[in-house]
Amino acid sequence: MNEDDSKKTGGSFERDTDYIPDRITHEGRRPEHGPADVPLWPVEAGRYRLVAARACPWASRAIIVRQLLGLEDVISLGLCGPTHDLRSWTFDLDPGGVDPVLGIERLQQAYFARFPAYPKGITVPAVVDVPTGQVVTNDFPWITHDLFFEWREFHREDAPDLWPAELREEMEAVMKRVYTEVNNGVYRCGFASSQDAYDAAYDRLWTAMDWLEERLADRRYLMGETVTEADVRLFTTLVRFDPVYHGHFKCNRQKLTELPNLWRYARDLFALPGFGDTVDFDQIKTHYYSVHRGINPTGIVPQGPDLSVWTEPAGRHS
Amino acid sequence: MNEDDSKKTGGSFERDTDYIPDRITHEGRRPEHGPADVPLWPVEAGRYRLVAARACPWASRAIIVRQLLGLEDVISLGLCGPTHDLRSWTFDLDPGGVDPVLGIERLQQAYFARFPAYPKGITVPAVVDVPTGQVVTNDFPWITHDLFFEWREFHREDAPDLWPAELREEMEAVMKRVYTEVNNGVYRCGFASSQDAYDAAYDRLWTAMDWLEERLADRRYLMGETVTEADVRLFTTLVRFDPVYHGHFKCNRQKLTELPNLWRYARDLFALPGFGDTVDFDQIKTHYYSVHRGINPTGIVPQGPDLSVWTEPAGRHS
Repeated sequence: MNEDDSKKTGGSFERDTDYIPDRITHEGRRPEHGPADVPLWPVEAGRYRLVAARACPWASRAIIVRQLLGLEDVISLGLCGPTHDLRSWTFDLDPGGVDPVLGIERLQQAYFARFPAYPKGITVPAVVDVPTGQVVTNDFPWITHDLFFEWREFHREDAPDLWPAELREEMEAVMKRVYTEVNNGVYRCGFASSQDAYDAAYDRLWTAMDWLEERLADRRYLMGETVTEADVRLFTTLVRFDPVYHGHFKCNRQKLTELPNLWRYARDLFALPGFGDTVDFDQIKTHYYSVHRGINPTGIVPQGPDLSVWTEPAGRHS
Repeated sequence: MNEDDSKKTGGSFERDTDYIPDRITHEGRRPEHGPADVPLWPVEAGRYRLVAARACPWASRAIIVRQLLGLEDVISLGLCGPTHDLRSWTFDLDPGGVDPVLGIERLQQAYFARFPAYPKGITVPAVVDVPTGQVVTNDFPWITHDLFFEWREFHREDAPDLWPAELREEMEAVMKRVYTEVNNGVYRCGFASSQDAYDAAYDRLWTAMDWLEERLADRRYLMGETVTEADVRLFTTLVRFDPVYHGHFKCNRQKLTELPNLWRYARDLFALPGFGDTVDFDQIKTHYYSVHRGINPTGIVPQGPDLSVWTEPAGRHS
């Protein structure tokens, strides 16, 4: 995502959630869940490119889900570098600074190919139609949803059931609270521009963190014994908590490592293929501390914390 | 102290240590240790006022030592508020914003009473001659030294031997390393203005923190079984570590609470009269986060960390 794409009200941070709403569905048919009165594109192996950035928590959801479902050979992945300028995320990690499939230097070019005067933030994740070079959608919650429901024919055989039907209602409620209070809650702390707005944001965040800590006391994962989409969505915030949100966003009641259940849970997930192996702590730290000069004017990136704790045996801190 | 009173070289923070060097000695005689070719003032009960701020680590040394030695009725204490403006620390905690003994609003007035065009930073701690309202000295290492050596006739009967003669040589070496690498080392991290300067400062700090952690593995206090001046000097940095230096100054390899020996040691000291009861965490946090707008532009003060851990039974975290 791109935090320039936000507005502030009374010192409080509010995320702009007005995305390109197109969806990619099986045969371009009307989807069972979610918005259907939007342009629908057909699922097609090799046609689309997921553009993401390992630094970005919202984009990382899609990186993880794509890998969990075994879609690597069906939807290619383009990766932007950890920093972006005022206009766009860029492909500065690629040779020559050009995405080898899309042939562009700036993700903005794919947005402009679709909407020549696109007025909003250039965000990741974005799914791009490779033949035309046009962005299809950047609506991140529906991107991961549809990777599961609409691309089933291409899932690997032992792909996890990320959306168990019998849990869907409870899961939607959990994910909603995780989104507003935690995923977005850390930003509300970090981008508050008044003490009152920050104090309120901090209290909301920690109320939710305490709820999660308690919820995980007797559950291995958020919804029970198996990994679901809800875990993916929480994981991307937890893995950034100590390296970034704790200090940079002032979410510092405790470190994640000091919350026994959440820490056990986060390391459990980290050890699974698709989770820890898609995390790049250096890119994460570089992104936040370099881009948000409004709260870190020097752009200096802290050396800490010691991240070796993520790969230590799980018993050590329990 | 006052961090405006500093200079930067190649992105590195260097503390300006050119203080008013006067000393207060027994009968105004030549002292045994330290600079003697400076104006000497006589020890005299009731004549001097120590002006300090609970927010400031350098001033807090003097607050602690005064109390440890039982000098409260002999040297009065004036306390400035946690924030200061560009010109001076102020007595904004006092009724009417005026120090009740000196009758001034700004510590600067006591500096100007002595040196009308005093060109340097207005720092705490400062010892003021009450009859004339003039600052005598702001040379903090010698202030605490002399409270011990020169005011012995007024010490309480069971005052600790903060400078055991047989340990003096080793203690000076320990205190020197603590000063350059830890007391000042955290500032070197926080005020670095380039990534290279920060990285070097971080490595220096943590080399010293590891040395201390190891030193305290088999010593109750820094010099052995009894509290000395060396402990006072380390304590004032440790008590600020998690609330301020960890996040605000990017000293974030671990929290103090994650370093078992240092944490046990810091809480041991905190529980002693003169240490924990002179600490005001709110003033400490307000000072650093409000004053240093160059690294915290919003001035927002974090609500964390949870500081109740300081007063929990010592066994819990070991």
